[in-house]
Formats: sequence, C-alpha cells, structure tokens
Amino acid sequence: MIGLFDSGIGGLTVLRAVRARFPNENLVYLGDTARLPYGSKSPETIERYLAQNIRFLIERGVKAVIVACNSASSVLVGRKDLRFPIPVYNVIEPGARRAIEVSKTQRIGVLGTRATVAGRAYDKAIQTIAPQAHVHSQACPLLVPLVEEGWENDPLTNLIVYRYLAPIVAQNVDTLIMGCTHYPVLRESFRRVVGPDVELVDSADAIAKLLDDDFQTGRLRGSPSHNKGTTELLVTDASPSFQEVAARLLAPISLEPLHQVDLIEEQKRHD
Amino acid sequence: MIGLFDSGIGGLTVLRAVRARFPNENLVYLGDTARLPYGSKSPETIERYLAQNIRFLIERGVKAVIVACNSASSVLVGRKDLRFPIPVYNVIEPGARRAIEVSKTQRIGVLGTRATVAGRAYDKAIQTIAPQAHVHSQACPLLVPLVEEGWENDPLTNLIVYRYLAPIVAQNVDTLIMGCTHYPVLRESFRRVVGPDVELVDSADAIAKLLDDDFQTGRLRGSPSHNKGTTELLVTDASPSFQEVAARLLAPISLEPLHQVDLIEEQKRHD
Repeated sequence: MIGLFDSGIGGLTVLRAVRARFPNENLVYLGDTARLPYGSKSPETIERYLAQNIRFLIERGVKAVIVACNSASSVLVGRKDLRFPIPVYNVIEPGARRAIEVSKTQRIGVLGTRATVAGRAYDKAIQTIAPQAHVHSQACPLLVPLVEEGWENDPLTNLIVYRYLAPIVAQNVDTLIMGCTHYPVLRESFRRVVGPDVELVDSADAIAKLLDDDFQTGRLRGSPSHNKGTTELLVTDASPSFQEVAARLLAPISLEPLHQVDLIEEQKRHD
Repeated sequence: MIGLFDSGIGGLTVLRAVRARFPNENLVYLGDTARLPYGSKSPETIERYLAQNIRFLIERGVKAVIVACNSASSVLVGRKDLRFPIPVYNVIEPGARRAIEVSKTQRIGVLGTRATVAGRAYDKAIQTIAPQAHVHSQACPLLVPLVEEGWENDPLTNLIVYRYLAPIVAQNVDTLIMGCTHYPVLRESFRRVVGPDVELVDSADAIAKLLDDDFQTGRLRGSPSHNKGTTELLVTDASPSFQEVAARLLAPISLEPLHQVDLIEEQKRHD
C-alpha cells in the first residue's frame, strides 16, 4: 500500500496519475482539509503538519508516502536532516527534473503558493541539477480559491492568470512548472497566456514516472498482480464543498466515498 | 480583560472597534492562523475549534469572549445547548439587530463565507427578531483571498464583487450586512455596486455597541479607569504574510507584535 497526502483535495490529481500507472497498487489518500490550505502558512507549521500526516500514514501500514502537495513538499527539498523509516517522495524534485529535461533554453518559470515560492524549493531543486538554469517564480494565491469556486473556464480567471503570468512571460521562459496540485485544472487558461510554444509541466505525471523507475530498480517493492488496487480516501474535515471540488478535480473518474479521521486523536491513542 | 478570537487576522477590525470604545480595557486577541480559514470548513470542525479557542482564552483569565469571526459565530446562533462559564458574544446577532434597525423595507442582503451562508446564521438571527423580513444571502469565497492579496482597490476585485452582488442587488435590498470581518476593507467596492442608498452594516461596530450596553446594565463588569488598556496579539502560526495583512487591516493604527502559541500543547498541560 502506498500513502499520499495533501493539505486538501488538490493532491487527488496526483492520486489519479499514480493510479493510472499502477492499477493494482492499494492506495490510501489523506486530505488534511481541517487545516487547509498549507500554502499561506509558515515553514515551521507546515513541517509539523507534514510529520503528523506521514506518521499517520505509516501507522496505517504504507510502504512509501508521496507528499502530493507542493507547499508541504517545499519544506523537504534539500533537507538531509529530515529522515523517515520508509521512502517519502516529494513532488518538487521530479517536477524540477522534468522541467530541465524539456527546456531547451533552461529558462524555467514556476507558479506556486506563497509557501512554495518563498521557500525557493523549485529554485533549489533545479539549480542542484542544472546550476546554469534561470528560474523565475510567481506566487499565485488566488488560483486555488478560483479553482475551488469552480471558475476554471471563466474570463475573470483568465484576467487574474494574465496578471500573475505577465512578469514570467516577460522573462522569456520556455517551460512553466504548474507548482501546485490544483493548477493543472487551469492548463487552458495558462496556455492562452503563454502561447503554444511554452512547455507546461505537471508534477503529478513526473512523480508517477519516478515511482515507476523505483519499482524497476527495486528501490520500491511492487504489489503482487492479484492485488485489487483499492483506493481509500480519508479527510480530516468532510465539508460538502470539499466533496464537490474533489468530484470536479477527478472527473470523469468517479470518486470513492470520503471518510473522516482525526489525526490528533488517533495519535494520542498511539502515544 | 476581554478575549477576542478569529480564524485569522480579520477579527482585528473587531478589536479596533472594541478598543475605540474602551480605551482602558485590557484585550487579548487570538488568531488561529495555523488552521485558517474556517469559512470553507464543516460546522462540526468549526465548533471544535471554537471550543478550543474559548477554553484557551478562559485559561488566560478573560471575563468575556468575543467571537470576532462570522464563520465561528455562525455555529453559535440559536444554540441554547452550547454553554460557557463566562459571557461569549457572537458578531452575528448584533449585526442582524443593527440591520433590522436601519432597514426601511426589511429587505436585507447578507454577504459571507460558505460556512456562514450555508448555516443560515443571519437568516435565523434576523427572523427571530423580525419574522416578516426578507433575507438574501450570497457566499463570496474569493473576497477574503482578494483582501489577503492586497487587491482591495483593484478593477479585478470590482468585477468579482459585481458578480457576487448582482443577484442581491436584483432583490432590491436596502441594507447589506458585510458578514465577514475582512469585508469592511472592500466597502468602497461594495458601494460602487449597490449605489449610494443601500446601508452597509459592519458587525464590528455593532458588537462594540452591544458590549457598551452590557457595561451600562452591569451584565459585564468594566475595568477600573486606571487600567492601561493593554493589547496582546496571539497567533497559532506566525507567517510573514499574516503580519503584513494584519498591518494593512489595522492601518493607520500600528500593530503590536504577534506572539505564537500552540493551542493543543497548552491544553495538554492543563489536562
């Protein structure tokens, strides 16, 4: 069983990419909806939530955890001091690697939350592999609320996307990382602003590909082919609006029922 | 000492109104920034956070608590089963009463978060006092992120405000409740859409007035006039963006330093 978590339901786009590659792997997804979003919060608080979520998933018996949230992933990049008893994947390093592969000019744009951009996580990940690359980042705090409001094909959203992207476009990037799990929903809107020649990189595909490599090399043990490929969806708060947004993000795939869990209470029981 | 709390820093507009009326009252403000916003979350989760925040403030020694957050207040309206050892004020009932007083036609509009509107808190509070009143509510999930982005005097914000307010304006309301502590910052934008003849009601003024009445009638004990009127600002997460938004909301009044506290840990110590 593989665990995934996100601050909310945006990470379901990662779950979908992982499910597409590994049809018989059992997956458990944790959406920390009671404390979302992480993107406006401090690195210290995000790190505390990250540790609680990973611990919760390990107690459920997963063999690896995917941090399916860029803001939570951002506190992991370049941190050799953070160690876990099982492999923990962040979405930033595979996204950065993918951007370097597809970029011809090594001028790369990054869109993300305040936390992801302020922590310079993509900058660090890119420059570790390609020190000569130029990285231009833009925090886009309104994009998640716009997606959650369901305004993804909307002239107002296009205007806001235009405002956020204009400074990045002015830097002549040839590749743009959609550095938040909600953003691929806005792909058409980004395309409209950046034109047909800029590559749009989705971390969900990149992390699924990395997992595949790790199964090949034996770093991760694959599930026996008779596994049923179950999907368990857990949230820390089950409000009707989350259910609705989750259904929209996963469409046309239908959604498993969401089950509510209490991280703090479960961990008290284990202490 | 009086305690106030909000999911974040929006409630500072209430703190400012209370401070203006009671210059020598000691105030302690708790912003639950580690878990904000409440407005997208379920009533069950909001009620749990509310109970923790009130308990935290009682342990600090306050004589009364003002729930300076409409989403948190919304779970209190009409709930006779929720009892606390000290007076707990919500911002919805005073706002509703004020709207009924100023409305000539008793056609009242309400803007709020998803939680406030879904819980029908203003509807209940208004119709308890004025059963013949017509209430038209609109959830406006993007307005808080727009204020936090600092776009309050911006054509894009005006377009979004126009979209949210158009159905309310079509109902010929003569009074509009700004049912979220962030919204008074958007007053000019609302004014532009509703025109000069609609009354805009700010709950911050209404709750400060109610407190004044309760000091007069002796329901609340006033502080001795030699009190220094100290203001303590506590947050559960101190990210730089919260500091910046807080400073903007309180301008031109300068901000006291924010101190970080951990609700869960403090309460474990008391258990």
